[in-house]
Amino acid sequence: MIKAGIIGATGYAGGELVRLLLGHRNAEIKWFGSRSYIDRKYADVYRNMFCLVEDKCLDDNLKELAGQVDVIFTATPQGYLASVLTEDILNRVKIIDLSADYRIKDVSVYEKWYQIEHKSPQFLEEAVYGLCEINRDDIKGARLVANPGCYTTCSILTAYPLVKEGLIDTDTLVIDAKSGTSGAGRGAKTVNLFCEVNENMKAYGVTEHRHTPEIEEQLSYAAGREVLVNFTPHLVPMNRGILVTEYAKLREVQREDGTWGLPSDERIRAAYEKYYAKEAFIRILDQGVCPETKWVEGSNFVDVNFKTDARTGRVILMGALDNLVKGAAGQAVQNMNLLFGEPETEGLFFAPLFP
Amino acid sequence: MIKAGIIGATGYAGGELVRLLLGHRNAEIKWFGSRSYIDRKYADVYRNMFCLVEDKCLDDNLKELAGQVDVIFTATPQGYLASVLTEDILNRVKIIDLSADYRIKDVSVYEKWYQIEHKSPQFLEEAVYGLCEINRDDIKGARLVANPGCYTTCSILTAYPLVKEGLIDTDTLVIDAKSGTSGAGRGAKTVNLFCEVNENMKAYGVTEHRHTPEIEEQLSYAAGREVLVNFTPHLVPMNRGILVTEYAKLREVQREDGTWGLPSDERIRAAYEKYYAKEAFIRILDQGVCPETKWVEGSNFVDVNFKTDARTGRVILMGALDNLVKGAAGQAVQNMNLLFGEPETEGLFFAPLFP
Amino acid sequence: MIKAGIIGATGYAGGELVRLLLGHRNAEIKWFGSRSYIDRKYADVYRNMFCLVEDKCLDDNLKELAGQVDVIFTATPQGYLASVLTEDILNRVKIIDLSADYRIKDVSVYEKWYQIEHKSPQFLEEAVYGLCEINRDDIKGARLVANPGCYTTCSILTAYPLVKEGLIDTDTLVIDAKSGTSGAGRGAKTVNLFCEVNENMKAYGVTEHRHTPEIEEQLSYAAGREVLVNFTPHLVPMNRGILVTEYAKLREVQREDGTWGLPSDERIRAAYEKYYAKEAFIRILDQGVCPETKWVEGSNFVDVNFKTDARTGRVILMGALDNLVKGAAGQAVQNMNLLFGEPETEGLFFAPLFP
Amino acid sequence: MIKAGIIGATGYAGGELVRLLLGHRNAEIKWFGSRSYIDRKYADVYRNMFCLVEDKCLDDNLKELAGQVDVIFTATPQGYLASVLTEDILNRVKIIDLSADYRIKDVSVYEKWYQIEHKSPQFLEEAVYGLCEINRDDIKGARLVANPGCYTTCSILTAYPLVKEGLIDTDTLVIDAKSGTSGAGRGAKTVNLFCEVNENMKAYGVTEHRHTPEIEEQLSYAAGREVLVNFTPHLVPMNRGILVTEYAKLREVQREDGTWGLPSDERIRAAYEKYYAKEAFIRILDQGVCPETKWVEGSNFVDVNFKTDARTGRVILMGALDNLVKGAAGQAVQNMNLLFGEPETEGLFFAPLFP
Repeated sequence: MIKAGIIGATGYAGGELVRLLLGHRNAEIKWFGSRSYIDRKYADVYRNMFCLVEDKCLDDNLKELAGQVDVIFTATPQGYLASVLTEDILNRVKIIDLSADYRIKDVSVYEKWYQIEHKSPQFLEEAVYGLCEINRDDIKGARLVANPGCYTTCSILTAYPLVKEGLIDTDTLVIDAKSGTSGAGRGAKTVNLFCEVNENMKAYGVTEHRHTPEIEEQLSYAAGREVLVNFTPHLVPMNRGILVTEYAKLREVQREDGTWGLPSDERIRAAYEKYYAKEAFIRILDQGVCPETKWVEGSNFVDVNFKTDARTGRVILMGALDNLVKGAAGQAVQNMNLLFGEPETEGLFFAPLFP
Repeated sequence: MIKAGIIGATGYAGGELVRLLLGHRNAEIKWFGSRSYIDRKYADVYRNMFCLVEDKCLDDNLKELAGQVDVIFTATPQGYLASVLTEDILNRVKIIDLSADYRIKDVSVYEKWYQIEHKSPQFLEEAVYGLCEINRDDIKGARLVANPGCYTTCSILTAYPLVKEGLIDTDTLVIDAKSGTSGAGRGAKTVNLFCEVNENMKAYGVTEHRHTPEIEEQLSYAAGREVLVNFTPHLVPMNRGILVTEYAKLREVQREDGTWGLPSDERIRAAYEKYYAKEAFIRILDQGVCPETKWVEGSNFVDVNFKTDARTGRVILMGALDNLVKGAAGQAVQNMNLLFGEPETEGLFFAPLFP
Repeated sequence: MIKAGIIGATGYAGGELVRLLLGHRNAEIKWFGSRSYIDRKYADVYRNMFCLVEDKCLDDNLKELAGQVDVIFTATPQGYLASVLTEDILNRVKIIDLSADYRIKDVSVYEKWYQIEHKSPQFLEEAVYGLCEINRDDIKGARLVANPGCYTTCSILTAYPLVKEGLIDTDTLVIDAKSGTSGAGRGAKTVNLFCEVNENMKAYGVTEHRHTPEIEEQLSYAAGREVLVNFTPHLVPMNRGILVTEYAKLREVQREDGTWGLPSDERIRAAYEKYYAKEAFIRILDQGVCPETKWVEGSNFVDVNFKTDARTGRVILMGALDNLVKGAAGQAVQNMNLLFGEPETEGLFFAPLFP
Repeated sequence: MIKAGIIGATGYAGGELVRLLLGHRNAEIKWFGSRSYIDRKYADVYRNMFCLVEDKCLDDNLKELAGQVDVIFTATPQGYLASVLTEDILNRVKIIDLSADYRIKDVSVYEKWYQIEHKSPQFLEEAVYGLCEINRDDIKGARLVANPGCYTTCSILTAYPLVKEGLIDTDTLVIDAKSGTSGAGRGAKTVNLFCEVNENMKAYGVTEHRHTPEIEEQLSYAAGREVLVNFTPHLVPMNRGILVTEYAKLREVQREDGTWGLPSDERIRAAYEKYYAKEAFIRILDQGVCPETKWVEGSNFVDVNFKTDARTGRVILMGALDNLVKGAAGQAVQNMNLLFGEPETEGLFFAPLFP
């Protein structure tokens, strides 16, 4: 039985971790960390857990926790983990960090976009970016997994096969993303009140959202060259779900008959299948079917598809996931499964909730 | 492995049955019946099931199906099952009927409220009303289970202990119920369009909703006398969830010291605990906590609580459940577990989804 | 031109006052008071007002304001107006108070339900309860108008004709109310975040909501005897709208032929028409039509109707209004029109927004 | 008093026309045409109009109607107006067509995208594209106004000044649009049911939405060269509102000092102001403020703004409007005002509804 501790158990991502780990046959939660609710019953904070969780919330003592559990999930504000992580802790426990502290290899990029100093850049190199479908083998042996962001998971997985195969001109790549409001967290802010979000839609963080460099770094690895994108997130009046719509010019490729031209739909689909056909959690939709966030709600699936436009020479890529599951807690559990030799789908392979 | 067939698999309740049975360790679906989508892939109708269900939809041949499976769920319009059910079928297969055909013992009451002729009243007597917490023992040996309605499950379970113990004057009982829109089904009707339901709230079926006689019959059994209530359903702009608020005058009871007076909060709570303390799916909330539909979403839980008002001598009872789970498919699976000797919670004991 | 000042212009009710007064032909806003946003442009706080309001927010100096305007609207927390009101101010300016400070004549009742000391009870007697349709004549000459609460306006207007005419037994009256979330105000509270309210429904303030004594006082006047009710508010995932569903036993009345019996539907309808037929803002719906909040959204209308149940001897009353308009700012403007001899519908008679 | 007739008065756009015309001081509706509801009271179809509209719905006899009114609004399915329009009708009455029949000059483009034959292409040349801010002078003298589509109005107005001034490379222009569900109309379709739209988001009509050629034609006029775009609409769980996010590479321009480079923010803002500074209904937001659909809800405003990204050399343009007002009925009334010499803002200049 894997013993797990959660630091930041009372945020939305932390709450989802609890939900998923309760359904995991070989894991148990030993520590519900929450600085805001110390000594309060966890089920008083999340009443869906009434009768399911009897524990009280504890403080966020990473050092003490490291001696009690096998894995620690940190669903904490940026900078927290970097400020407390030590070699000693890493020697005693696996860490899956849901914050951004170890996602970006270049510390100056991190500090520029997050506007905070990184307190332990010495662990950046060894940290493995926990996008399971791309970095599976590296994750298995890691001590420290940087669990990807919600937007980034969706943005990268939607574009990855085409970038990797050189089918699109990454200089033309534009990512227009839409997210449910749980992505904004449980903090009490006026802008996230029901009456402000309901019946409303807006872009935010235009040109400066922090998931931009994370997307760029990973797509650069895939492309083998530097990729810069415009990434624009939007807030949508729904609780869960991220939808990304990506636009790029197709690149000419050599066809079987030796001629050059834009890749056919079959070729693009083959690229997706090359990388994802065996993936349990990535569903390449049938031709012509556009992903909808509702079809993945509550699950760890990512649905992807594309449409080409001969008129403009562009391909439109689409991807959908549940920001709290594959975009956060689900992927974290998937990483835990990889770290501990569990079947990768354990605790995660259930049907989405509809309607 | 219990082999199950579903007639009406493409309605919302049918879809939820599929979701739940996919997660049941000892059941498998052999027949996805849907008159509207014959020969279409089930996962084309409910794309959340893409990669999870490969079957096509079949017609609704109850007789043929009876030879292939152990249990049939009928999530069909009123009158369907009554029109095709035979003794021969009942001898070969268990039936759990999610329609109202066998819920009401008095055929004249059924025909009055549903405005259709009942085609096989001869099975009414043996049919067991599948409210698991109340009729558990009878269900176990049944051939035909009448799965309760969504509003009725919530309304009855919320009031049952107080009615049974004689703590309230049932002549004063008023039930004000609020439901998410999935209760209205997946039929394409203008009144259920997004723009008509969103940002809107209304009562409907006032004084004449068909769940009224079902509630009255069951509460009459509990009271040992005829109970008539006003039951008023309301449509709420949310997908899932039923909340009931019930009002009744408290009856004077004899206290431990021999005097008579209105029952104390402790006494009322004791009544709930007497009947529900051991129930896996009924949660008696802590004092002062009002049930919220979101805390049970996606789960088989019913949350109940109450508040007394010394000023008026009334008690206000509150209950919440997910209309598609405990209010339909979840309770149906719970009934299946009882019928086949499975642990009652198998396939059903998971945490609600929040947010 | 009526010069108006608003104290509390940046709450939701204050914002709605601004919207309505901008459309009033004979009023202009001279003071946008907001303690939280002093010196900030009003249109930065409510961007719907961009290019429509150029003013900055000012402090809430009632005394200074009294010298500059003809009428002051106080859309402020409970206790504010009572703590600053003076005879001198009342001599110089009309005041329409959207808080509860002067709604309840009995100061002990106010202090019990609101849990604060009333600082100027000497003005309670002269304050006129600004329910225009009931107290029209008294309002016209008032210096201080206590603008009714949102729930109370809806609850009272829905029941008033039947209480006044003695058609229902007020001892059996139960009021089940449902409100959109703007009624909870613009304060940044976790419970009002989008993700907590959306896809959720709950009761709150059961047996102890502060609008209870206000409803009871006004219905007591109508009944000519003390009325106690159970009033239960519920939070609904929509921005605007209140729906009330009221239950009461009908009282036997003498019919035209001299016999006694429960009142007919015609008689009940006649009661509504007796009091409301000439009212511009109260719409008695056609028989069988249930009020829906969406049909009054953005407008000053109240829609009412009823349904009798011969089985139980009860009548179910239903009413709907927009909590920010007829439930707050609209009624306040209606009161202003009465105070200043304007046509009562000026600035208020426009069609609801649908969808 | 302008006498107006509406063909298609019971769709959402038709309903909004009724709402707006009721508030117009110099117009009255003489004909509520609705093939689906002939002889039914209009207020039974839209109960928000109860007590405001007493008329019954009439058939859609354009010829007869032409003799009774000054202007006809056709809020009808594609192809209707083209199939009944005659020279005689145009001689007797002004027509404002809310369908797409006369929006596209090239009949082959229309027939390709709409997949129907155009029955009266002879009127295409004289029809004026009713985008008031761009074609104001031409509209004034027109007999036939082609009222622009909702997406197109928002997409074009957001990009127009930059295209006109040559500040962006139109070959790189991508338009990602998001719309509330009222844009899908009031037809009873499963995909538009509350439970299918709520808590969901999806793209649709990718690469083939019919507003694409309309946007391209108008932007081509502005650019002075052919413009092809990718336009991707998305369905959002809200009733009203369109938000567009547009992406394009900036073009190098000559600066005041003679050097060449990407245009500064000031230069881009100046372009917006050049065309829109005097427009009553276009609001250029303050720097850094992103448009939100809620800030324009119920009003005729279009809010626009932009953000440049030096890293990628792109500009992100954003625009928001209410699809039923400026995107349909409001613009139609604005066109009516132009046709009849009314102040352009008459009946349209009121504050948006918030929240």
